[in-house]
Amino acid sequence: MKFNIALLAGDGIGPEVTEQAVKVSEAVAAKFGHEITWKPALTGAAAIDAVGEPYPDSTHEICASSDAVLFGAIGLPRFDNDPSAPVRPEQGLLKMRKKLGLFANLRPTFTFPSLLDKSPLKQERIEGTDLVFFRELTGGIYFGEKGRRDEGETAFDNCVYTRAEVQRLAKKGFELAMTRTKKLCCVDKANVLETSRLWRETVQAMEKDYPEVEVSYELVDAVAMRLVQWPNSYDVLITENLFGDILTDEASVISGSMGLMPSASMGEDISLFEPIHGSYPQATGLNIANPMAMVLSAAMMFEIAFNLPEEGKAIRNAVNAALAEGIVTEDLADGGKAYGTSEVGDWLAANI
Amino acid sequence: MKFNIALLAGDGIGPEVTEQAVKVSEAVAAKFGHEITWKPALTGAAAIDAVGEPYPDSTHEICASSDAVLFGAIGLPRFDNDPSAPVRPEQGLLKMRKKLGLFANLRPTFTFPSLLDKSPLKQERIEGTDLVFFRELTGGIYFGEKGRRDEGETAFDNCVYTRAEVQRLAKKGFELAMTRTKKLCCVDKANVLETSRLWRETVQAMEKDYPEVEVSYELVDAVAMRLVQWPNSYDVLITENLFGDILTDEASVISGSMGLMPSASMGEDISLFEPIHGSYPQATGLNIANPMAMVLSAAMMFEIAFNLPEEGKAIRNAVNAALAEGIVTEDLADGGKAYGTSEVGDWLAANI
Ligand SMILES: CC(C)[C@H](C(=O)O)[C@@H](O)C(=O)O
Ligand SMILES: CC(C)[C@H](C(=O)O)[C@@H](O)C(=O)O
Repeated sequence: MKFNIALLAGDGIGPEVTEQAVKVSEAVAAKFGHEITWKPALTGAAAIDAVGEPYPDSTHEICASSDAVLFGAIGLPRFDNDPSAPVRPEQGLLKMRKKLGLFANLRPTFTFPSLLDKSPLKQERIEGTDLVFFRELTGGIYFGEKGRRDEGETAFDNCVYTRAEVQRLAKKGFELAMTRTKKLCCVDKANVLETSRLWRETVQAMEKDYPEVEVSYELVDAVAMRLVQWPNSYDVLITENLFGDILTDEASVISGSMGLMPSASMGEDISLFEPIHGSYPQATGLNIANPMAMVLSAAMMFEIAFNLPEEGKAIRNAVNAALAEGIVTEDLADGGKAYGTSEVGDWLAANI
Repeated sequence: MKFNIALLAGDGIGPEVTEQAVKVSEAVAAKFGHEITWKPALTGAAAIDAVGEPYPDSTHEICASSDAVLFGAIGLPRFDNDPSAPVRPEQGLLKMRKKLGLFANLRPTFTFPSLLDKSPLKQERIEGTDLVFFRELTGGIYFGEKGRRDEGETAFDNCVYTRAEVQRLAKKGFELAMTRTKKLCCVDKANVLETSRLWRETVQAMEKDYPEVEVSYELVDAVAMRLVQWPNSYDVLITENLFGDILTDEASVISGSMGLMPSASMGEDISLFEPIHGSYPQATGLNIANPMAMVLSAAMMFEIAFNLPEEGKAIRNAVNAALAEGIVTEDLADGGKAYGTSEVGDWLAANI
C-alpha cells in the first residue's frame, strides 16, 4: 500500500525521536511492501519562530490531505512564564485538534514486566495493568465560551456537550471494549454536573446496542483514587475532555513506563499519533532521549490508521526485544550501558 | 470556655463514629475546663426520611447559631442508582456548604510511621509526606448556571470565579504556608481556562504581601502525576472546587491512611469538621468502623474553630498512642486483636 504521512516533529527532542520513528516505519514498509511519502510540516515553537503561528494553515493543509499524522512533541521553556499568552505552542495543539476533528484521544497504560520496579506503586498493585482511556478531545470546557466580565474581576468558562458528541466518543469505547475484556467504565461527575448527567444517560441508552459489554459508572473523584489503588481493576474507560486530561496523566505514571507510552487522537477522517511525553528541552540534541514511545506511536499508526495489525506487531516485538536485550537509552539503563537515541532507533529498524 | 457544637451524625456509620468523637471531646473539655453543649440535628438520608429534605432549615438554623459543626458521614446505597435525582443526601451537602459559606476545605494528607506499609505507593515515595490542600468549596462549576437546551440534546455547566473568591481562599493558603515550610503551590489549568488565569494572576498579585512564601504554579494534570510520584515534594496546595475534589481524593489514598484522615471546611463565621471517609453502610451498627478520622476531626475543631492547639494535641497524642499500642479497629488490626468502635473511643477518651 501507499501512504502519505504528515510529519510534525515539533520542538525539543521532537525531531530526534521522530527521526527514529521514521527509520522504523521505513523498515516496516520495506518488509511488508508498503511505500511511505513523508510530508514534513512545522508546528509548535518551531512554527511560531518561522511564521508567527503554532499551527499554520500550510501545516493544516498537509495534515488534512495525508493518511495519518505523526507528531513529536511541542513546547519550549521560553513559553513557560505566561501560560495565558495567545501565541503559545499549546494553542496550536488545541487548534489542530479542533480543525482536524480529532475527537477521541486513545491512551493505553500498560506495564512492561521488566520495568515493574520503575513504578511508584507497589508491584502487586500494578501487575497486569492494561487499561485504555478514551478521552473526548474537541469539546467540553476546553472549547466552550470563556472570558471576563465586571471589568476583568469575574472569569468564566463554559462546559458544553451535545448528545451526538458523547455518542461518537462512547461508540469508540464500546467498540474497543468488544475487542478486549468487554468491560467499560464511564467516568463522570453526575452527582454535580449537568454535562455529566447527559454523558451518563447517553451511555446508558447505548448499552442495549452492546449487550455483551458490562458498563460501570464511576465518579471522577472515585476513579482518581482507584487508579492509584488498583489500576489493574480497569479495562476501557471513557470520559470527557478535562477529566481525561487529569486522569490520563495520573494513569501514565502508575506503570512507571511513562517514557514508553504512545497515544492516538482519532477523528472521522484522520488520526494523529504521538508519544505522551513532552519536548524535554534539556535533552535536545544530546542523543539521549528515549525514542520508544514515539516508535510505539508509529505502531499505533499502522494498527489504527492503516488497519495493519501485523505491521504494528512487528514494531512492538522489536521494542520488547530491545528492552529484553538492554538496548535502551539512559533513562532505562539502570547503571548498565546506555545507548543513544539514534542507536536505539537503528537497532529497532534492523530488528523489524 | 463554653461552646455550642452542632452535631450532624448523618447516615450509616456516621452516628457510631460521631459518638466516639463526642466522648473524646468531653474528655478534653473535662481536662481543660471547657463546657460543651451538643446540638444534634438531622442531615443526609436520615433527614430525607424524617422531613423529605437532606439539609432542612431547622438543621441550618442549628448550624448557623453554633460555634462549630461536627459532621459524620452521609449517603446510603438506595441513593446510588440515580446520581442526578434532586433529593439526594449529597444535594444537602452542597446546600449546606453554600448556606454556611464554607468556602475553604482543608484536607491534610500525612503518613503515620506505623502505617507506611498500607500505602499503595512504595515506602520511599511517601516517607515524610505531609501536605495540605485548601480546596475552594462554594464556587466554580459546582455552583455556576447549569442546564439543557435544544430539547435536552445539549447540556452545559458554567464555571465562574470572581477575584474576591480567589483572594479569600488564597489568603488561607498563604497564611497556612507561613506556619509551615512557607511553600505554596497554586494548582490551575491556566493554559486552557480563563478562570484559571484569573486564579493565577490573583495569586501572583498577592505574592508581595507574603514575601517569605515561595509560590509555585502547576497545571492540574502535572499535579495529578507528581502526587503519585513524589507526594512528599508538596506542602500547601490551593485550588478551585472541581480540581480540589479530584486531587484531594487522589491524595487521600497515597498515604494508605485514608480511614484516618480528617478535614475542615471553613467559612467567615463558622467551620465544619468531618472525616473524609463515607458512610460505609455495610458496617452500620456492627461496631467495627474506625472512629479515628472522626476523632481527629474533633481535634481539628479544637485547633481551628476554638483556637485551642493544646486540646487538639491531646487528642492527636491519644490517637498516636492507640496506634502504637494496637488499640485499633479491624481495618488496622493486621491479624492482631481488633477492638470495637466504642472500645477504641473509650480508650481514647480515657487517655486524654
Ligand atoms: C498542553 C495542553 C493544552 C494539553 C491539554 O490539556 O489537552 C495537554 O495537557 C494534553 O493533555 O495534551
Ligand atoms: C458528594 C459530592 C457532591 C462531594 C463533592 O464533589 O464535593 C464529595 O465528592 C466531596 O468531595 O465532598
